[in-house]
Amino acid sequence: MRGKPIKRIGVLTGGGDCPGLNAVIRAVVKTANYEYGMEVIGFEDGFGGLINNQARKLAAADVSGILPRGGTILGTSNRDNPFKYAVVRDGQKVWADVSDRAFANAREHGIEALVVIGGDGSLSIAKEFYDKGFPTVGIPKTIDNDLSATDVTFGFDTALTTATEALDKLHTTAESHHRVMVLEVMGRYAGWIALESGIAGGADIILIPEIPFSLERVCEKINSRKAEGKKFNIVVVAEGAKPAGGEMVVRKVIADSPDPLRLGGIGNQVGNELEKLTGMETRVTVLGHLQRGGSPTAFDRILATRYGAAAVKLVAEGEFGQMVCLRTPNIEAVPLARAVKELRRVSPDSDLVMAARAVGTSFGD
Amino acid sequence: MRGKPIKRIGVLTGGGDCPGLNAVIRAVVKTANYEYGMEVIGFEDGFGGLINNQARKLAAADVSGILPRGGTILGTSNRDNPFKYAVVRDGQKVWADVSDRAFANAREHGIEALVVIGGDGSLSIAKEFYDKGFPTVGIPKTIDNDLSATDVTFGFDTALTTATEALDKLHTTAESHHRVMVLEVMGRYAGWIALESGIAGGADIILIPEIPFSLERVCEKINSRKAEGKKFNIVVVAEGAKPAGGEMVVRKVIADSPDPLRLGGIGNQVGNELEKLTGMETRVTVLGHLQRGGSPTAFDRILATRYGAAAVKLVAEGEFGQMVCLRTPNIEAVPLARAVKELRRVSPDSDLVMAARAVGTSFGD
Amino acid sequence: MRGKPIKRIGVLTGGGDCPGLNAVIRAVVKTANYEYGMEVIGFEDGFGGLINNQARKLAAADVSGILPRGGTILGTSNRDNPFKYAVVRDGQKVWADVSDRAFANAREHGIEALVVIGGDGSLSIAKEFYDKGFPTVGIPKTIDNDLSATDVTFGFDTALTTATEALDKLHTTAESHHRVMVLEVMGRYAGWIALESGIAGGADIILIPEIPFSLERVCEKINSRKAEGKKFNIVVVAEGAKPAGGEMVVRKVIADSPDPLRLGGIGNQVGNELEKLTGMETRVTVLGHLQRGGSPTAFDRILATRYGAAAVKLVAEGEFGQMVCLRTPNIEAVPLARAVKELRRVSPDSDLVMAARAVGTSFGD
Amino acid sequence: MRGKPIKRIGVLTGGGDCPGLNAVIRAVVKTANYEYGMEVIGFEDGFGGLINNQARKLAAADVSGILPRGGTILGTSNRDNPFKYAVVRDGQKVWADVSDRAFANAREHGIEALVVIGGDGSLSIAKEFYDKGFPTVGIPKTIDNDLSATDVTFGFDTALTTATEALDKLHTTAESHHRVMVLEVMGRYAGWIALESGIAGGADIILIPEIPFSLERVCEKINSRKAEGKKFNIVVVAEGAKPAGGEMVVRKVIADSPDPLRLGGIGNQVGNELEKLTGMETRVTVLGHLQRGGSPTAFDRILATRYGAAAVKLVAEGEFGQMVCLRTPNIEAVPLARAVKELRRVSPDSDLVMAARAVGTSFGD
Repeated sequence: MRGKPIKRIGVLTGGGDCPGLNAVIRAVVKTANYEYGMEVIGFEDGFGGLINNQARKLAAADVSGILPRGGTILGTSNRDNPFKYAVVRDGQKVWADVSDRAFANAREHGIEALVVIGGDGSLSIAKEFYDKGFPTVGIPKTIDNDLSATDVTFGFDTALTTATEALDKLHTTAESHHRVMVLEVMGRYAGWIALESGIAGGADIILIPEIPFSLERVCEKINSRKAEGKKFNIVVVAEGAKPAGGEMVVRKVIADSPDPLRLGGIGNQVGNELEKLTGMETRVTVLGHLQRGGSPTAFDRILATRYGAAAVKLVAEGEFGQMVCLRTPNIEAVPLARAVKELRRVSPDSDLVMAARAVGTSFGD
Repeated sequence: MRGKPIKRIGVLTGGGDCPGLNAVIRAVVKTANYEYGMEVIGFEDGFGGLINNQARKLAAADVSGILPRGGTILGTSNRDNPFKYAVVRDGQKVWADVSDRAFANAREHGIEALVVIGGDGSLSIAKEFYDKGFPTVGIPKTIDNDLSATDVTFGFDTALTTATEALDKLHTTAESHHRVMVLEVMGRYAGWIALESGIAGGADIILIPEIPFSLERVCEKINSRKAEGKKFNIVVVAEGAKPAGGEMVVRKVIADSPDPLRLGGIGNQVGNELEKLTGMETRVTVLGHLQRGGSPTAFDRILATRYGAAAVKLVAEGEFGQMVCLRTPNIEAVPLARAVKELRRVSPDSDLVMAARAVGTSFGD
Repeated sequence: MRGKPIKRIGVLTGGGDCPGLNAVIRAVVKTANYEYGMEVIGFEDGFGGLINNQARKLAAADVSGILPRGGTILGTSNRDNPFKYAVVRDGQKVWADVSDRAFANAREHGIEALVVIGGDGSLSIAKEFYDKGFPTVGIPKTIDNDLSATDVTFGFDTALTTATEALDKLHTTAESHHRVMVLEVMGRYAGWIALESGIAGGADIILIPEIPFSLERVCEKINSRKAEGKKFNIVVVAEGAKPAGGEMVVRKVIADSPDPLRLGGIGNQVGNELEKLTGMETRVTVLGHLQRGGSPTAFDRILATRYGAAAVKLVAEGEFGQMVCLRTPNIEAVPLARAVKELRRVSPDSDLVMAARAVGTSFGD
Repeated sequence: MRGKPIKRIGVLTGGGDCPGLNAVIRAVVKTANYEYGMEVIGFEDGFGGLINNQARKLAAADVSGILPRGGTILGTSNRDNPFKYAVVRDGQKVWADVSDRAFANAREHGIEALVVIGGDGSLSIAKEFYDKGFPTVGIPKTIDNDLSATDVTFGFDTALTTATEALDKLHTTAESHHRVMVLEVMGRYAGWIALESGIAGGADIILIPEIPFSLERVCEKINSRKAEGKKFNIVVVAEGAKPAGGEMVVRKVIADSPDPLRLGGIGNQVGNELEKLTGMETRVTVLGHLQRGGSPTAFDRILATRYGAAAVKLVAEGEFGQMVCLRTPNIEAVPLARAVKELRRVSPDSDLVMAARAVGTSFGD
């Protein structure tokens, strides 16, 4: 616990866009203003704004009305690292440590503590700030929901909702045309969006990084459905899904594809193969950036608001080097050091996976 | 664990409509069919269908496509209790115990176990069934989310989403017209929908049963906002919210109201009083049944699917007299006896309430 | 056609909130700035801002991002008429003509023409402005879509969408509980929202001002559905719907109602009567202000944008005293004098009504 | 006008999936049953069902509840033409005229008239049926809204809504990351979806087939926005948009692209080029099949219902060889011969395009 109350804090958003960032910013500013009488300075475009001193004061009026809006009014970036910043010296681009410049800028604004909203990358920088003596508090942000230190992250429920709505839409076309419809969703290392949207959208097949799939088993599922009289199939594929025999197997088959323009991510690869192997008309949709945008769901707005309020409380209590997290039903804090260490991945034995299998979903394994 | 595998189970939905009921029914049928080779008989309109032997076989094909649909394909009712059933004897309506008839009907269909999806009332009957020797498993259903035995109940997230969307809509009118907009939402004993939609919808004032309010404090909040230049106010009122001085205070004031047609629930009462006390134009909306309908959110579809799959697993394992519940992140089981005993209410000291206060929300206390 | 190009125009929004107002304001400002090099002054809260000189400059940056937002950034009011304005003289409230003050304020801001976005009331004032020599152009705004001078008005499609979504939600509860669900929607003199949402939401019974209804015929419809095995009914009632025998018939029956708290608008009256007459459980929802709020639909944003652009074009071409309107597929202009004269009401012989009847909908006649 | 009333009609849906097909089927069945006492036979999967005699009776109960659902309960196909049908003769695939078989199947079912819901292809077949003496009525279906014979077609408003929602989502990411976001939407020959969603979604640049674009002019627009301080750009591209200098120009540039996997449709091509030419981070989303699915909007449900009711009326009145169409505000009929002849394309001089330009949108010309 600090002796003197803190009068002014900084806040920034780093990493990829995520629904709920504005709700966090609003909660940080309102809690700071109303609850603790602190002023807030917002840095623009992630750590870039701290390095280049692009900042503005954020009062309660500045965050009025932003709760339901996607994106971040501060801008964000996943490129600027104060400890490894691209500068041009002697006509050459080199990496430099410009953290002293960042600290100096912070001091110039009278910032006594910094709230960093971001993913792995940004929180690692936050940890370095703290290790170097700068009072810092973190708020986790990952749309993939793959952080072991918290039950859920904000933005995930919105992305899940977008993916589920897409599956609802693809269902009608799949049924009407007797097609295989493939939807590729986000999830490079963890298959949460694919798994949960697949359950919510009634997918027949779900392919995730944690459960390597075999195209043969996927085809078996499609054929067994055909035998039951089901003439269509919905397949959800996480972008990081991988075939059991290793990536190369698919790549090799793909190399023979007559239509190289349809290549691309795993979604298109799986779609191409299934069309060839099953003879069924197959269509692929890549959801892409639609998952990062839009008005956050009620769930995400609430979680984001709780995170923002709790982070400022940590600052007020002098609990630095911590990150807020959800331990249902409470908001708690964990050291930044531990926070960014471990990935939360789907366990193939979890009852979530078991429930999906129980209602007939195949994971292609 | 039972000796002989179960071959046929029954399922029914009781109590008020709730988004996700169809998702549960689908999961029960598919899990029974695919995972355990059990047949399923659905009873219509709650326990009434069991008493009057209105039932039909439910195969996987019968539940195809119902995952995203609101309501229950089985129908529901909150009136028919086999242990206290209205019958006419000697020209008079009397209450009779017709549970033997219900058991006989179940036996006639070859039902070896019953899955009851319902709230307090239906689960209490399920417990009596179990106590009388009928193998029964429960699945909790309450849109109010007020069950202490589980972290969340399905349907709540959909109702919350509907209430939040309503607040988003009322916001624009409130701002454009400089009005007080009051929204009355469900929650007779627990204020979860009001609290969470209030946070998600950026309400200025939230009135819930757990925190008795004073109209004076509500007016103070409105006036302090006026002083800040905020010309509008959003008020969310749970239907069970009560003034601190007791219900009568408001009723008395209301009795003098010149417009008795605008009387009614607490939402209208609060709206009338605020208009008189603040002189601001006030409009009241009662969300009512809109909260019970519609396609369940992704969250609710997933939870409902997990509940359904877990309930059939309990049946298969011979674990009767239990109710499924969510202990994040797992689905677990608790005895029916304990399940229906305790109400989960909002704690005024919870960090959810604290977060709401931190961003400036008043609870009128 | 004017000689000298106009350099500065004013804009204001009057009357009730309506989705699309911001889209119009944005189009007016952007078109004025980009296309004609005009500056724009926005007056706040309808004609009140002109009378009391509350105004601000609106540049393109000020309207950035408001296209998808409900409400009006200028505020609106339906109370302040410059030709009949409430002022206090000698301690008494009297009506005064303060139009000279309004003109003076307009001149002070260098306004050479005024764009008035509003309904009947506001456009009548706009016409008086024009008659008194002030160059004025009108943009029609009525959520009820009851203006004969234009095919459609913006805001209507959004209200229709909100009402249809409500019917979709009520459907599941109606089916699950075998109830009569009544939805009261806007439409005091014209039943467009009730008629179109009723068709889109699959209502069984639609009651509108243009077709007086008989409760007996409504009950006949409910009974004939019961005979077909349909156990639920969806009834949409426009707030201006009236029984064939005159209003008193219903009022008289209502007077005997045991539950005066459930009285109120026509929706509640119809609901009460149907419950008594059919013996079916009946629930009433009054959609109210939810119809005026929210993000405008794509259709409304487009129509609003076209109106705004066309209105500034009229100003640039010196075509004053006109109102923009949609004559599918073109935007045209009609004199303000004609614009506000005639109500567009539902014709009982229109093919819209015929289509509703053809699919089995009853109008209670 | 025919002498004897028709007792039984057939209905089928052909061509690509489109929101509102089920609403049309429902209206056809209900109108036939309720209004004219006709029975309805539904043929499955387009003309294939007529050729292969896959049909089922559709009563009112069969179409209950399908109004809000996307897709078609009858299935659809755009491959089977009775006048040019793929059959295997002597081990070889040849095209055969199997229309007599189709007529025989229709007679076997007692069909006296056929309602064909479909696009260009299906309606051309319908015309041939009529020319050969089979009483046929058409209902136009094209999600692209490019039929000159009608003001609007059903399905378009839903696709427009989906595209607009996508733009709303991309906006937040574009702003937060200072990116160029490109959205490719449907529209091979006509740019209606791109144009209208671009206006509704506030796109900065809209590229449509009717207005050939120049990448240089697109870059000029982006640069002029940069000069205004706008750091992001939203670009909507119709799949049929073409550069002014001819298709080859773009193809040539693309051939040098370092990342052939990102090639593909015009959206990806434009995105690749803009990133190279402007140096701004660019992301491309291809909306694809999401535009064909989902619950139809209120507007589409109403239009579809009117079309269905009007088509059966034409049948009852013996008006064959006609297609229903919307001439706002009425439903009318035009000869099938004329109906399929002419494409409705965006006129570069229309006030819709003018309005888009007026608010600052560039068409890259």
